[in-house]
Amino acid sequence: MFTHNKALQYTVRVAEPNPVLASLLLEQFGGPDGELAAAMRYFTQGLAEDDAGRKDMLLDIATEELSHLEIIGSIVAMLNKGAKGQLAEAALEEAELYRSLTAGGNSHTQGILYGGGPALTNSSGVPWTAAYVDSRGDPTCDLRSNIAAESRAKIVYERLIAVTDDPGIKDALGFLMTREIAHQKSFEKALYSIEDNFPPGKLQGVPQFDSLYVNSSTGMGDADGPWNSGEEWERIDDVVAAGPLDGGDGNAKVQLSDAEMTAVKAMASRTSSDPSKDPLTGADLGSLQS
Amino acid sequence: MFTHNKALQYTVRVAEPNPVLASLLLEQFGGPDGELAAAMRYFTQGLAEDDAGRKDMLLDIATEELSHLEIIGSIVAMLNKGAKGQLAEAALEEAELYRSLTAGGNSHTQGILYGGGPALTNSSGVPWTAAYVDSRGDPTCDLRSNIAAESRAKIVYERLIAVTDDPGIKDALGFLMTREIAHQKSFEKALYSIEDNFPPGKLQGVPQFDSLYVNSSTGMGDADGPWNSGEEWERIDDVVAAGPLDGGDGNAKVQLSDAEMTAVKAMASRTSSDPSKDPLTGADLGSLQS
Amino acid sequence: MFTHNKALQYTVRVAEPNPVLASLLLEQFGGPDGELAAAMRYFTQGLAEDDAGRKDMLLDIATEELSHLEIIGSIVAMLNKGAKGQLAEAALEEAELYRSLTAGGNSHTQGILYGGGPALTNSSGVPWTAAYVDSRGDPTCDLRSNIAAESRAKIVYERLIAVTDDPGIKDALGFLMTREIAHQKSFEKALYSIEDNFPPGKLQGVPQFDSLYVNSSTGMGDADGPWNSGEEWERIDDVVAAGPLDGGDGNAKVQLSDAEMTAVKAMASRTSSDPSKDPLTGADLGSLQS
Amino acid sequence: MFTHNKALQYTVRVAEPNPVLASLLLEQFGGPDGELAAAMRYFTQGLAEDDAGRKDMLLDIATEELSHLEIIGSIVAMLNKGAKGQLAEAALEEAELYRSLTAGGNSHTQGILYGGGPALTNSSGVPWTAAYVDSRGDPTCDLRSNIAAESRAKIVYERLIAVTDDPGIKDALGFLMTREIAHQKSFEKALYSIEDNFPPGKLQGVPQFDSLYVNSSTGMGDADGPWNSGEEWERIDDVVAAGPLDGGDGNAKVQLSDAEMTAVKAMASRTSSDPSKDPLTGADLGSLQS
Amino acid sequence: MFTHNKALQYTVRVAEPNPVLASLLLEQFGGPDGELAAAMRYFTQGLAEDDAGRKDMLLDIATEELSHLEIIGSIVAMLNKGAKGQLAEAALEEAELYRSLTAGGNSHTQGILYGGGPALTNSSGVPWTAAYVDSRGDPTCDLRSNIAAESRAKIVYERLIAVTDDPGIKDALGFLMTREIAHQKSFEKALYSIEDNFPPGKLQGVPQFDSLYVNSSTGMGDADGPWNSGEEWERIDDVVAAGPLDGGDGNAKVQLSDAEMTAVKAMASRTSSDPSKDPLTGADLGSLQS
Amino acid sequence: MFTHNKALQYTVRVAEPNPVLASLLLEQFGGPDGELAAAMRYFTQGLAEDDAGRKDMLLDIATEELSHLEIIGSIVAMLNKGAKGQLAEAALEEAELYRSLTAGGNSHTQGILYGGGPALTNSSGVPWTAAYVDSRGDPTCDLRSNIAAESRAKIVYERLIAVTDDPGIKDALGFLMTREIAHQKSFEKALYSIEDNFPPGKLQGVPQFDSLYVNSSTGMGDADGPWNSGEEWERIDDVVAAGPLDGGDGNAKVQLSDAEMTAVKAMASRTSSDPSKDPLTGADLGSLQS
Repeated sequence: MFTHNKALQYTVRVAEPNPVLASLLLEQFGGPDGELAAAMRYFTQGLAEDDAGRKDMLLDIATEELSHLEIIGSIVAMLNKGAKGQLAEAALEEAELYRSLTAGGNSHTQGILYGGGPALTNSSGVPWTAAYVDSRGDPTCDLRSNIAAESRAKIVYERLIAVTDDPGIKDALGFLMTREIAHQKSFEKALYSIEDNFPPGKLQGVPQFDSLYVNSSTGMGDADGPWNSGEEWERIDDVVAAGPLDGGDGNAKVQLSDAEMTAVKAMASRTSSDPSKDPLTGADLGSLQS
Repeated sequence: MFTHNKALQYTVRVAEPNPVLASLLLEQFGGPDGELAAAMRYFTQGLAEDDAGRKDMLLDIATEELSHLEIIGSIVAMLNKGAKGQLAEAALEEAELYRSLTAGGNSHTQGILYGGGPALTNSSGVPWTAAYVDSRGDPTCDLRSNIAAESRAKIVYERLIAVTDDPGIKDALGFLMTREIAHQKSFEKALYSIEDNFPPGKLQGVPQFDSLYVNSSTGMGDADGPWNSGEEWERIDDVVAAGPLDGGDGNAKVQLSDAEMTAVKAMASRTSSDPSKDPLTGADLGSLQS
Repeated sequence: MFTHNKALQYTVRVAEPNPVLASLLLEQFGGPDGELAAAMRYFTQGLAEDDAGRKDMLLDIATEELSHLEIIGSIVAMLNKGAKGQLAEAALEEAELYRSLTAGGNSHTQGILYGGGPALTNSSGVPWTAAYVDSRGDPTCDLRSNIAAESRAKIVYERLIAVTDDPGIKDALGFLMTREIAHQKSFEKALYSIEDNFPPGKLQGVPQFDSLYVNSSTGMGDADGPWNSGEEWERIDDVVAAGPLDGGDGNAKVQLSDAEMTAVKAMASRTSSDPSKDPLTGADLGSLQS
Repeated sequence: MFTHNKALQYTVRVAEPNPVLASLLLEQFGGPDGELAAAMRYFTQGLAEDDAGRKDMLLDIATEELSHLEIIGSIVAMLNKGAKGQLAEAALEEAELYRSLTAGGNSHTQGILYGGGPALTNSSGVPWTAAYVDSRGDPTCDLRSNIAAESRAKIVYERLIAVTDDPGIKDALGFLMTREIAHQKSFEKALYSIEDNFPPGKLQGVPQFDSLYVNSSTGMGDADGPWNSGEEWERIDDVVAAGPLDGGDGNAKVQLSDAEMTAVKAMASRTSSDPSKDPLTGADLGSLQS
Repeated sequence: MFTHNKALQYTVRVAEPNPVLASLLLEQFGGPDGELAAAMRYFTQGLAEDDAGRKDMLLDIATEELSHLEIIGSIVAMLNKGAKGQLAEAALEEAELYRSLTAGGNSHTQGILYGGGPALTNSSGVPWTAAYVDSRGDPTCDLRSNIAAESRAKIVYERLIAVTDDPGIKDALGFLMTREIAHQKSFEKALYSIEDNFPPGKLQGVPQFDSLYVNSSTGMGDADGPWNSGEEWERIDDVVAAGPLDGGDGNAKVQLSDAEMTAVKAMASRTSSDPSKDPLTGADLGSLQS
Repeated sequence: MFTHNKALQYTVRVAEPNPVLASLLLEQFGGPDGELAAAMRYFTQGLAEDDAGRKDMLLDIATEELSHLEIIGSIVAMLNKGAKGQLAEAALEEAELYRSLTAGGNSHTQGILYGGGPALTNSSGVPWTAAYVDSRGDPTCDLRSNIAAESRAKIVYERLIAVTDDPGIKDALGFLMTREIAHQKSFEKALYSIEDNFPPGKLQGVPQFDSLYVNSSTGMGDADGPWNSGEEWERIDDVVAAGPLDGGDGNAKVQLSDAEMTAVKAMASRTSSDPSKDPLTGADLGSLQS
């Protein structure tokens, strides 16, 4: 069960309102790498987890991410506070309000639709979707996904820090960014505490194909590196010449029943594009008339 | 530029049609960890990449994933081929067609809407969305995202292999699963070929917070492990008692102009929920009338 | 800031696994009226709220809804626990696993994609979206939205109770349903504690139009009731005869500049569908050839 | 069946083109509280409704909302009319057209993609989704949802009125806003004409929990009001100390079969994160190399 | 302005309830080719249209499609009517209701979430989205899109007719299917009444490239037809050998300022994946430990 | 199988960086008529196609569209290249970076979230969705959809050409636009090579209704043209007077079982909105208190 204390985990000090900046910060409130995505990724994993240590860790970090969601949302609320009041009270001339709402970013929707409250959208106004949550119920996948998610969240905070000179916001974003680093370290420890974590899952790969590099893109700029060259790797450089890798003919086949075959043939005959004639077309009509 | 050869990279041999199984396999055609997601993740990264080796690798693997999209789509097409013909020609009684389309999974939509062609949806019929693509334009993030994505794709193939006993499909899925393992290895090599890849990005964390573990979830089941204990970690066990981590009061503040303050106060006064009276409510009315 | 205790707010006792039922219960985990939607609705409102009483209430209830999200998610996890293990270990024959995953509802995606963990989707597998959250930053709207949302959540729980006879699940769902009733009562009290809460917002309506009923749908079944008849209402029964309600000509007009007018006329002339001739069409070609 | 008369229900008089303002107004064309959402909410309810009075009312108002969709769409079309013609004819220099399309709001997409026609998106360009429609097939829910929806639509119109000084647009928006007030009154009458409309649905709540207030958020700012205090309410102030509200242990449990238990244990053993060792991790590698 | 008459445009006679069939029919209520998509496609075009004939036609057909939306929605409501009542009143044993809701298709969500009312989703429960509406504000595009949309709607009706033997439903679907044919004919006439409707829009193509066929897919199954062969076409058969079609080097280039170049180089150096060393990776660690 | 050559199909020469223009061009990268949508439309059709000529053509054009996706993505990458480096290195003062990211269009999200890489979104930042792909598995529909899609893509390129004066970009966009014209011609040839392609599909329409024009929108602006007048058409001008077109009563009916009827009646009685009384409502309470 969750409890809440109205003190923030980190004090939010905003120098002055700025709805445009608020709309950029939404990236970490309702964006794909934002704090809701993080909280929900770990929370859904934690609920189904039976490993005592991982379950505890996932619920610890999920809960902390909710506290971070509160911090970033509070910054957004402060940045919008002036505009919210002035729009609600129609306290400015229309033209002034109009200008204040069309100054950039996505602030117009934040004002008109959300009334200055923090909205669970990204910086373009796209509503948060659980499609961002990539929990798969296997720890050797999920921990890797968490490591990656923390690294993405870190870089987005880094970019936001680069575009604001409000010292209070910069300070709070620095805290939030750093926590992502700490979380990544925890997830790394948990992953590497699993013996045989690679390949992920239980099934081993087919030996013939698990150290093969298929050089599918050729021409200028073909390059070598430890990712495609060296003892570890076999390599195919002429993909078409190598042909289907199973040695077959590269066709797709299925065994149909007679009844199915009859229907398929009837359809084929009925819908054939006859290659032998050159028909007059709608495009021809469109050009002919001019 | 891309070219295509109509031979598949791996021959597809399907024993007999099965639209329900087809609808499960869509997970790897148009699902979040499917081949389109993979191809587009690496392709979008490759286009903006300036590092010669990584660019080549990303375009190699993106291209191969397109070939895998073709394989999985071809299996789906074969599994649906009979139903497609029979529905198009209305070759069965209505009741039989109805039964064949409502036998499970998501096959009803695959028949009615997509006419038996492979659709870019997941196994629930949810259309593929680029929200699945988490390219962020920083290699220390993107390569970690790629590693995680490959591990997820591997596990989904493993699950699909577990639910079909068609030997041709099982064989092709084993190939596809194995290629994800190989790709993960390439991305790992590329990541660790970057010096100082942790923390991701350029900015270092705030030292005070980057080795701190916040034990936010307590009660039964609290556990220790290398992810929260040991020399590396500082730790907070009583989160509320520890208070805001910056030592402040945990409030959110902003400096409003006088005009803004006037509007905010007017709004607050106008919309106050007066705590001192106990009003009759709509719910009271709804109960009173009975 | 949030904290978590690993004891649930209500003990979850599930009689036996049932992935199909699990997929139905997802409606209250990741569906539009589910617990995440509730928590996020109140949380986003609470962050921007300045009224002390409402802010406290919103954060109280938001936090409790997170505890409810945990309860419903735990039920789902228990219902899926057997299938999760058996799929991960490939512990059954393929045909048996296949049958277990295609037994109804949306359980196939829950197994293949989410590995038996609770997923933030509704019972059709549609990912949760913040489009479900209708916070607008005005308490006379938001409290009404909350009242409505609680009533919807109540009815969905009522339906789920009606379809399961597992006593432990029924009991927990009864608890969750009842809490929605209590929350609705709180929101009602807060709404009616605002003086002049109707019409919502600050601006009064135009007197001429705020007690007018427009009888737009006529024919059999036209009916009277206090919603369209009585002293309170003026009424228009013949909508077309009444004409535009402002007394104007019902056209849409704009004043274009000369340059704009020139462009608009050029476009109109270039793209005119000439009504005076009867052209041969693509459809004609398609029929003619037969 | 529907019929249409090409006179608008309210005459639209736009002073001059302004694509940026047009993009803001889209909020009420294709946004979550816009006229399509309203029309579809009432229409879907009306189709399944058996109560003669409510069915008539729902179809009346659904139809009127379609007429309002036409009004707001016509305003948008007038505001875009100049830009539409000039872009179609390439009637301005490139740099001028570029400036006209990047002047703010979402006007760039409205020009490039939609060619100046009214698009069913909100003011951020997010396509309308039926996820906005919260019809649930129960009148004690649906009427509350309608009341809430009307109040939200009213406030969005109020905000749009505050940001434009075009007298014709202001006048038409005032009409549309006022109609939402009238509709809200109708829905209120219909709701309170149902005896026993609270709690919504048929099932009563569990008496022990339906007047309980759970004070989940504590610390500074805890407040009392009729929503959590007074004779009506029981109250829990120390949530964790109160423990699981059913008096149980707060754990989630399920009875697995032996075969299920075997698989679950095998998975647990295979994927255990061993808490006793401190492994070298990928993050360590990333730092070590520097 | 719209008006409504409660008589349907076509009488709906349903033999007996069948929620599974109802869920299939949703394809034409809230699916991509359903009646809402049709109505909104033509309505949004009609609002911005200045050509008198086309505007009238678009509004005629948009209005008729709304009447068809009503017909298909009424069929769905009738098919769900029994289940709706029984679920609302909990009139059956739990196990019976459970079975009735998990009998196939998407009927479980239709019952639990939508309470048996027609929902604006497709047959998989995916909410309708305005992303289905492809109005572009140019008649030579929009009319082609309308022709295509009518043809798709026709085929989906044809498939639905093939799977039901309820004579009343079959009859109504036959009517609806036929109307799509009639609408397609109208749109064809309007398109071909525009002189010079091909190429669409105003700008002519570059002569060098507008009759060129690029044979990008080779290998077995290469075929000739009037779409790639004959006098009309020039053709490239070896795409790579032909090289970039502008005769350039096929690279992407941009002129950066000195400051930009400095930053780009710093980033490249900092994030280089050094191809000369073969690093130990996370995957190596995961395998090494076993 | 696909292969790739790192030379572009058309050389990309960008004069100078411009992230705002980049965000507009995304319309053809990840927008509804963009190159990914085109490639996936033809690719999914090609996989399920049995007609040899069409299959070859679909795979040819799908592959070429991937090459075009690469071209447009490369232009976007070039336009963002400077901003990408400067943001990654924090090479400018915060205020300068902030200004550069909020200069218009959707460039703020492209910088903050995507780091300057080309993102699969449209020009408003809406992620690409497979809902844009309207493949239906019937060639008489799919080819019409392809013709329409090519015409839409052509017009969007035409608009983009109109808003940029960078000669290299203009040239490349002209190439891409022209290829859409060529593709449309191929699809036209393939469609009209099918005998009896109208009506699409197999089933003929009901003769009574396939040449009927329903004049649903009347009043000022009613117009005649070959789409609704002439020998080919029958016509209904007074829709309501004409009544239900099947000659029935226009009601929706279903035969319920006794048990179903009992439940439906119980529900109706329980939830009746009694038209005979005028209840006090929540809105009344909200107004009364003032």
